[in-house]
Amino acid sequence: MSRLDQQMAFLTEADRLKSILRATTLCDGSRMENSAEHSWHIALYALVLSEHAEQRLETSKIIKMLLLHDLVEIDAGDAPVFGDHDTDALALQEQAAADRIFGLLPDDQAKSFRAIWDEFEANETPEAQFAKSIDRMQPPMQNLASGGGSWIDYNVTYDRFADRIGPKINKGAPKIWAWLQPKVAAFFADRS
Amino acid sequence: MSRLDQQMAFLTEADRLKSILRATTLCDGSRMENSAEHSWHIALYALVLSEHAEQRLETSKIIKMLLLHDLVEIDAGDAPVFGDHDTDALALQEQAAADRIFGLLPDDQAKSFRAIWDEFEANETPEAQFAKSIDRMQPPMQNLASGGGSWIDYNVTYDRFADRIGPKINKGAPKIWAWLQPKVAAFFADRS
Repeated sequence: MSRLDQQMAFLTEADRLKSILRATTLCDGSRMENSAEHSWHIALYALVLSEHAEQRLETSKIIKMLLLHDLVEIDAGDAPVFGDHDTDALALQEQAAADRIFGLLPDDQAKSFRAIWDEFEANETPEAQFAKSIDRMQPPMQNLASGGGSWIDYNVTYDRFADRIGPKINKGAPKIWAWLQPKVAAFFADRS
Repeated sequence: MSRLDQQMAFLTEADRLKSILRATTLCDGSRMENSAEHSWHIALYALVLSEHAEQRLETSKIIKMLLLHDLVEIDAGDAPVFGDHDTDALALQEQAAADRIFGLLPDDQAKSFRAIWDEFEANETPEAQFAKSIDRMQPPMQNLASGGGSWIDYNVTYDRFADRIGPKINKGAPKIWAWLQPKVAAFFADRS
């Protein structure tokens, strides 16, 4: 196989991410969101919002992370944040998926993309922490727009949201969490 | 409205791109593709394929163009490449859409994003020409995978494809066109 043959095989395989459904709906509530359009949306979030990070970040690296971050779901599926999972088993499935899917690319590119995905997963660099925060703040934005969405499906309370999701958004994007938190609190207060 | 209020209004409006359907299906033919997941897919194409451009390009700028390029379809709709359009009227609709949608952002960001979209539309810089070529070569890849797709729906012949699409792909990405052209020719030859 030529280099282009390998790259096109990867890009055709990536198409399957459009059929992986998430727990979140579109803002209008009309259907569940898929992981490909979600990946586009949060790359756009990063392009718009990276100025709010605590330090100057390499926005183009954040965008690359977000374009690649969910490809492993083609094999491992999407794990809703309020669902119950065996996190160790899921991590192994995602590692195997990364081996297979990035392994479709020419070796140098497979290594480079895998390194970007590993950096995202490790959640240690400022770019990874911001990318992870963006990935966590888009679903509440969808839920606020649609009138509850996955919060209702999973019987989520404000305290459970704030405990489980708040620190994840706050870690990489405290200014964005400070903006979002009162809006989510007001949503749950209105429902009670 | 605060700066974050404006940015979040833009990002929530952008969600509507997930409901704009294109003429192309997913690779498995299961449903029509929407413009949001298409935008993700071609940003990934650019990340993988920009090494094949004729000169060294700024990949991160190409990716920004491709993340933004279809947002105007929220107001103006998708115009299938083999359909009949009033191209002047469509261009005016898209300009008005760009005014409205990018205008949701803070002024400096609205101007910056609009400049990226204008550069893509003008198709003059090497980055815009490569981005346009990628945007044109993903639908034939989907059609080859799905067994014909929009070529069948629009009664497209090989000659019509090669006349209308070939030069558009070749302009910014001749090496990629050289790879794709014989595959499309073989597909149509097999059908005849």
